[in-house]
Amino acid sequence: MHATDLIERKRNGDEIPAAELREFVAAYVRDEVPDYQAAALLMAIWFRGLSPAETFALTEAMVASGETVELSVQLGVRVVDKHSTGGVGDKTTLALGPVVAACGAPFGKMSGRGLGHTGGTLDKLESIPGFRAELSTPEFIEQVREVGLAVVGQSADLVPADRKLYALRGVTATVDENSLIAASIMSKKIAGGASALVLDVKVGAGAFMRTVEDARQLAEAMRRLGMEAGIDVVCLITDMEQPLGRAVGNALEVREAYETLAGSGPPDLRELVIVSATQLLVLSDLGLDEGAAQERVITSLADGSALESYERWIRAQGGDPDPALLPRANVAREVRAQGAGFVREVRAREVAGVAMALGAGRERKDDKVDHAVGVVCRAKRGDRVEPGEPVAEIHARDEVAAEAAEKALLAAYEIGAEPEPRPLVLDIIR
Amino acid sequence: MHATDLIERKRNGDEIPAAELREFVAAYVRDEVPDYQAAALLMAIWFRGLSPAETFALTEAMVASGETVELSVQLGVRVVDKHSTGGVGDKTTLALGPVVAACGAPFGKMSGRGLGHTGGTLDKLESIPGFRAELSTPEFIEQVREVGLAVVGQSADLVPADRKLYALRGVTATVDENSLIAASIMSKKIAGGASALVLDVKVGAGAFMRTVEDARQLAEAMRRLGMEAGIDVVCLITDMEQPLGRAVGNALEVREAYETLAGSGPPDLRELVIVSATQLLVLSDLGLDEGAAQERVITSLADGSALESYERWIRAQGGDPDPALLPRANVAREVRAQGAGFVREVRAREVAGVAMALGAGRERKDDKVDHAVGVVCRAKRGDRVEPGEPVAEIHARDEVAAEAAEKALLAAYEIGAEPEPRPLVLDIIR
Repeated sequence: MHATDLIERKRNGDEIPAAELREFVAAYVRDEVPDYQAAALLMAIWFRGLSPAETFALTEAMVASGETVELSVQLGVRVVDKHSTGGVGDKTTLALGPVVAACGAPFGKMSGRGLGHTGGTLDKLESIPGFRAELSTPEFIEQVREVGLAVVGQSADLVPADRKLYALRGVTATVDENSLIAASIMSKKIAGGASALVLDVKVGAGAFMRTVEDARQLAEAMRRLGMEAGIDVVCLITDMEQPLGRAVGNALEVREAYETLAGSGPPDLRELVIVSATQLLVLSDLGLDEGAAQERVITSLADGSALESYERWIRAQGGDPDPALLPRANVAREVRAQGAGFVREVRAREVAGVAMALGAGRERKDDKVDHAVGVVCRAKRGDRVEPGEPVAEIHARDEVAAEAAEKALLAAYEIGAEPEPRPLVLDIIR
Repeated sequence: MHATDLIERKRNGDEIPAAELREFVAAYVRDEVPDYQAAALLMAIWFRGLSPAETFALTEAMVASGETVELSVQLGVRVVDKHSTGGVGDKTTLALGPVVAACGAPFGKMSGRGLGHTGGTLDKLESIPGFRAELSTPEFIEQVREVGLAVVGQSADLVPADRKLYALRGVTATVDENSLIAASIMSKKIAGGASALVLDVKVGAGAFMRTVEDARQLAEAMRRLGMEAGIDVVCLITDMEQPLGRAVGNALEVREAYETLAGSGPPDLRELVIVSATQLLVLSDLGLDEGAAQERVITSLADGSALESYERWIRAQGGDPDPALLPRANVAREVRAQGAGFVREVRAREVAGVAMALGAGRERKDDKVDHAVGVVCRAKRGDRVEPGEPVAEIHARDEVAAEAAEKALLAAYEIGAEPEPRPLVLDIIR
């Protein structure tokens, strides 16, 4: 493998043999290929893309760069997992895991710590008093075996190639390329050891993917990688023009997930949990068809078993599941509609910006997240509002922050004529 | 200037403001922008190209990265210079400089030391016993003033940005992009201080440019850069399917240049010297039109003044111009035609490969060149050959090397039906 030559062939649009790509990645992880050659290759890939075979070779090489967790193998059962490409107010995992576990399918998720406007899944979980996200790999496996459910921080030894490449992509404008995204996500999922996976590909102004076509291409690429690695993958393409659910902010989102498990959450979050859980049950060892799976899911939300499963899980990881113990911000302020009409848009990016400014997310890796702050969008798209009626809540550290947030949050709302309905789940790719 | 953002905009095809490009280059030279970001930008440029304004900004930034030689300014006269994009057997400078100086126009050239199948201009000159290529900048200027002619190694302080970027381009597959090539060449010419320039853009199998269209684009880009920097540029597009002249190898080429100055050189080399010199005289302070310039050039070759100018120049740089003192290889072997017919091709790349294998060029920067070895292509395209007639000579270190070269050199010749004539000078862009 001659690095410059490999870069040149990729640049020219030639197919790179799997063995050479694997060697390039392995050499890069060993610091034998310098960052500048990896950067040139990444930019060439940005322009040319990777073929399915190349994408799989890259993914395999990334998996091989670190440890792998033999989760399903060690438990002797199909463990299921879920991944979202990231959206505003996305607390699905917090409700989905307990539902799936309550229905009898073990759920094990290793979650990365990335940047994010509104915190990641681990940030949300860490707003629960006492919750421990950093389990060792044996502890993780053991908890999935005993409790049927664990969500932990990703081991540092898992896919070090992805960590190195992802950092390089961030500073070389090569993040937004579908084959690189697919390889990054799927390498971690493959190394994480689940047997089946629901991938929620978000699309819209509040997501990484801006068009359904782009989202579908990414979904297909990830499904192919899963198949080649022996993992069953179902992809959902879901709307991210407006936040998912109402709450945006760590503790606020945990509370909303809790309410959803208790049967009173927002309809869109409930819908996504039911659709995702149904697909995971179909892929699990339970041998259910979609109808039976969905019935079992809905029952678990109605009979309290999903909520019990949540409480068992949180306690297993040292937390107290009582939502009354979640941190609360000093200032809560209602934001009131100025005119009458229908909510046409609740712009997700703008809402995320408000939550970020309040302190709910991090701009740099070492920023500290304020678990208590955030936004609750009481009115969502299609809701009728009257002047002076509260459309949203701001949870802020102080009055100054709340004041600044109010104007920005109002600007995220578009009020006008009744909008055409827009589905949440745009496609399911089985 | 935010480096990642600049890379992303270039990647997306946006125009980068001149001030930002200048800042990027300046920061890169100061090691404040890392190689991996420069590599990503270079690859994005490979795909998107640079607009004329961007190319000029890059060139300006490169010039500003080091010292500039006030050659024409200090001498108070338009000093002329010449550059070739590189070809096989290209010893034009060695004859052109003396002709131009003999005609009364000062000629000053700083030459880089690159890699090359058959050595660069400095390698050729250094095959002359005693020749010193490493003059200080004041010595260089002084020699142009007193002798009217100097060819020296490029100062290490000249355009350090190019040295750094060129090295990076070499290992990131981003060498072959016209705006980068144009900026690299022209930054050195602008910093070198000449007022007028002939650029010989070689095209064909033995050159970097493979199509006339590509060569013309590069020529236009360089001419534009010259104009913007106040340098008059004439571009020649010339054929490089077969070697220029007959000799390929350092001392052999010096001898051929000497013969050309003495009036007995190969016709194609003589033609190129006359065309190039004519254009430079027109651009000089002499105030000649093309007809008068060409007449003066031809006279200088006929009356011995060009040869005298050569001898004066070589002595000024410590060398002995007597061609009998040039090193000779141990083994000289004639290569004989196997069939009868016309020479249809003398493939320049293959000839260069033979010269390289004999030791005339360098593959790595620190390889030592053997000045004595090389090839003389006695028969050129269009010549009639008979079986057993010598078509070429091999000058080798030993019989083993000569033996290996013979077969390869024969393979570079295509003998067959009489070919259509092909001009040497394909275009002149004034």
